[in-house]
Amino acid sequence: LITGKNYIGNKTSNSGSTTFKTFNPKENQENAWVFYEATSEEINTAVLLANKAFEKYSDISDKERAAFLREIANEIDVLGSILIETYTKESGLPEGRALGEKNRTLGQLRAFATLLEEGSWVDATIDTANPERQPLPKVDLRKMLLPLGPVAVFGSSNFPLAYSTAGGDTASALASGCPVIVKSHPMHAGTGELVASAIIKAAIKTNMPNGVFSNLNSSGIEVGEQLVMHPKVKAVGFTGSIKGGTALFQMASKRDEPIPVFAEMGSINPVVMLPSAVKNTDWAKQYAGSITLGAGQFCTNPGLILALKSNDLELFLERLEVEINSIEAVCMLHPNIHANFNNLKKEVSSQDAVSTVASNENDVLPNFAKHKVIKVSGKDFIKNSVFHKEVFGPFSVVVVCDNLSELELIISNLEGQLTGTILGDVDEIEKQQTLVRALTNRVGRVIFNGVPTGVEVCASMLHGGPFPASTDSRFSSVGTSAIKRWVRPVSFQNWPNSLLPNALKNENPLGILRNINGKMTVYKI
Amino acid sequence: LITGKNYIGNKTSNSGSTTFKTFNPKENQENAWVFYEATSEEINTAVLLANKAFEKYSDISDKERAAFLREIANEIDVLGSILIETYTKESGLPEGRALGEKNRTLGQLRAFATLLEEGSWVDATIDTANPERQPLPKVDLRKMLLPLGPVAVFGSSNFPLAYSTAGGDTASALASGCPVIVKSHPMHAGTGELVASAIIKAAIKTNMPNGVFSNLNSSGIEVGEQLVMHPKVKAVGFTGSIKGGTALFQMASKRDEPIPVFAEMGSINPVVMLPSAVKNTDWAKQYAGSITLGAGQFCTNPGLILALKSNDLELFLERLEVEINSIEAVCMLHPNIHANFNNLKKEVSSQDAVSTVASNENDVLPNFAKHKVIKVSGKDFIKNSVFHKEVFGPFSVVVVCDNLSELELIISNLEGQLTGTILGDVDEIEKQQTLVRALTNRVGRVIFNGVPTGVEVCASMLHGGPFPASTDSRFSSVGTSAIKRWVRPVSFQNWPNSLLPNALKNENPLGILRNINGKMTVYKI
Repeated sequence: LITGKNYIGNKTSNSGSTTFKTFNPKENQENAWVFYEATSEEINTAVLLANKAFEKYSDISDKERAAFLREIANEIDVLGSILIETYTKESGLPEGRALGEKNRTLGQLRAFATLLEEGSWVDATIDTANPERQPLPKVDLRKMLLPLGPVAVFGSSNFPLAYSTAGGDTASALASGCPVIVKSHPMHAGTGELVASAIIKAAIKTNMPNGVFSNLNSSGIEVGEQLVMHPKVKAVGFTGSIKGGTALFQMASKRDEPIPVFAEMGSINPVVMLPSAVKNTDWAKQYAGSITLGAGQFCTNPGLILALKSNDLELFLERLEVEINSIEAVCMLHPNIHANFNNLKKEVSSQDAVSTVASNENDVLPNFAKHKVIKVSGKDFIKNSVFHKEVFGPFSVVVVCDNLSELELIISNLEGQLTGTILGDVDEIEKQQTLVRALTNRVGRVIFNGVPTGVEVCASMLHGGPFPASTDSRFSSVGTSAIKRWVRPVSFQNWPNSLLPNALKNENPLGILRNINGKMTVYKI
Repeated sequence: LITGKNYIGNKTSNSGSTTFKTFNPKENQENAWVFYEATSEEINTAVLLANKAFEKYSDISDKERAAFLREIANEIDVLGSILIETYTKESGLPEGRALGEKNRTLGQLRAFATLLEEGSWVDATIDTANPERQPLPKVDLRKMLLPLGPVAVFGSSNFPLAYSTAGGDTASALASGCPVIVKSHPMHAGTGELVASAIIKAAIKTNMPNGVFSNLNSSGIEVGEQLVMHPKVKAVGFTGSIKGGTALFQMASKRDEPIPVFAEMGSINPVVMLPSAVKNTDWAKQYAGSITLGAGQFCTNPGLILALKSNDLELFLERLEVEINSIEAVCMLHPNIHANFNNLKKEVSSQDAVSTVASNENDVLPNFAKHKVIKVSGKDFIKNSVFHKEVFGPFSVVVVCDNLSELELIISNLEGQLTGTILGDVDEIEKQQTLVRALTNRVGRVIFNGVPTGVEVCASMLHGGPFPASTDSRFSSVGTSAIKRWVRPVSFQNWPNSLLPNALKNENPLGILRNINGKMTVYKI
């Protein structure tokens, strides 16, 4: 079933000679499938097909696009056990995670379908004419969101399903009316091809134009670069490293026509423990779990824990050590990720003035991650920016601050983060509004008494944050609002009613909620 | 009343020694006032004050910010005739225009105040918890828009009031909760200082934190560069040339923390005349007026008119010549702008295969603009990108196409534009949906049977468009939605109700419209 070929629109293609394989980190050996890297010509054909498809696809009704998304979900579901097997072989992640992630992926596709079926997401805004207005008559003006054009999506390493081929970026872009060209992640190209085949089947079944979706294999950076620089590509979605995302962002802003890049990148997700929380040893258990969950390979992994110096803190950290040491090591996604983890863990741990809170020193299987938690004083943290580095894996830095103003200073000078968490009593936090404001100002999501891992897919989720958490803090890569990344508003002035898009017609044929002369209403004009 | 000093927060300051003067283009001589260029230290102080002010200002209620904006409008109004005189002396624009623009400026400030008083603009979105959900409990998640931080605003040359010191960018940024540092436009630094003094008075009267607004004089590019590169500046608003805006955009994306730049830049605003429109000679009069309005110094000036080759077209162009030649030349904003206009007009007019439709060959006063309309075939237009250049002034290129597919090809390959216009009958346009789609795809606003000049300030206005019309096609610089440029969504997870921002509290104390579990409602939870 896995051919190793690219999908250039509805057709498979392998005109190039460069090939690569994926790797089973649990077995510590290559998988058998051979993948054909997309050639320059195949990339160009895919983009031109997408551009051609855009003419039709952007005009297709929301309801038809919703049917397409639902059919993608069905076709992925139909793949059954082969998908789950391939996923586990290419990621080292357990079957339960694969099933959970598959359900999340189907749920996302269906959530966007529901959004389209309802229809109000296009932000229809209407100001009707007033020919009698003085000194100048007022024109009729109507605005709605329209899709940008072909979108390039870069699959992530750590979510082979939910943030790859048919993941949140693809689902939201297809929902918006933009064709998608996926640069498949080389670590799980087989999983990617299976999902791509499901999307293509769904596109054919629901009569979508050829080119609405393509899937390109690539083991290096050239395919991605060519995609981002192609003049017909109008936006980019990316989940991955700060280095990779920033490079794409810089590249895209230097194009003759700069385009938006939505890169969800690095985060160390600071957690502030107020004194009462340090006394609550239940947090030790919860954080031991959160730090090691999925071998720490989550962008919301808690990499930084800040607290005030105290005896209670020492007791808490002893408990954290016990809890985290009781958790078995698990396999990482790939030997490269495992090696990066070990190198970074070593680099950060070997800085001056570091002491160890917990460290797995057992022998483990190849590619399994040995957790580590280190401790450093607030003063030493401030002096050394190495402690700000994201160590992708089960690793965390505890910062012991002398006082609250030192803690606040650290928070204020942190790079942008996906999340920030505060643990404590309501009364306690109420007195720390400066701290709360400083934290809120650096993150996309603030959490009270919880762990940052676990990202709910819903309208009120903001998964993103100030740079380098993401390249555009104004948009979310998770939840239904992610659709807003792929659209722009367009105004229609004095346009004949019969020629207006349905969302803007007087009679409101879609029955959607619209802003008419400043009032939100579902009524016709 | 005009001191030539900078406003660094509430204090005037002139610690530098570089000075410059503004110019009265009608009198063709310098104005008397001497302006002190802001020093590097003054810029830094202004930004640090703004950053300090942000802590308080971002927490002030919408209603208090609304009162501040209304007070700014009042204080500008109170300036009275001195403002209008200074405006006309520094722009060469007539008094009527000054008064109209002042009213537009006050109207914008008050429109944002009204938006804040109503309060629903923060897009409050709430998904309530479900602790019983399987397999995982659902958290409580609430999202709203929060301000980015200090904003740098670059005043425009062509709107000394409505798109400068207290113009749309400043009004929308202050409305959002962001402090503003204005880089005053050097051509009308006196007008800028008067308006700045009004803003400062209003800030003091309404108890806004010192630093919520600063006004920096600058005749070169260094002040602007330093502002954009300052790590505490979090976004930039700019109205001006493609070259200037693109330079700022590139600079901002190379910062350690890239920031958004909203530059509204160049546009030639294509107008497509379908056969029936060419027969309607009334359009000749309207377009003669639109091309020459305000000496053509509008970003929505119609610089490109596309039509099919026909006898009717020749008759129409003869009529256009008569109409436009009956319009008196008027003064341009500055000798530099006048010189640029003449150079570009000459460059574009002297290309191969150009013929003249209309040309003012009369003697005129210094700095007055002599209009010109030229004609070129579709084939020649396609061959030569010089015809795509924006000639800022009363100038237009008529492109005579052999057929509709040639016209469509030209439209499809145009750079991004602020506006695109189609003139014709409804029946005629109905048959040209490919053309309409191609045009819509390249512009921010499509107009039916009208002129592109005249930009309504309302919720449904999109003033922007694909690059290089603007650096971010997803936002408008005119109308109340312009506030969305200066904010980002932040999610609050399981946050205690008493500590949530008012917009997200269960009891909905602001009485705003919110999305609760997918339904828009003003009810409490």
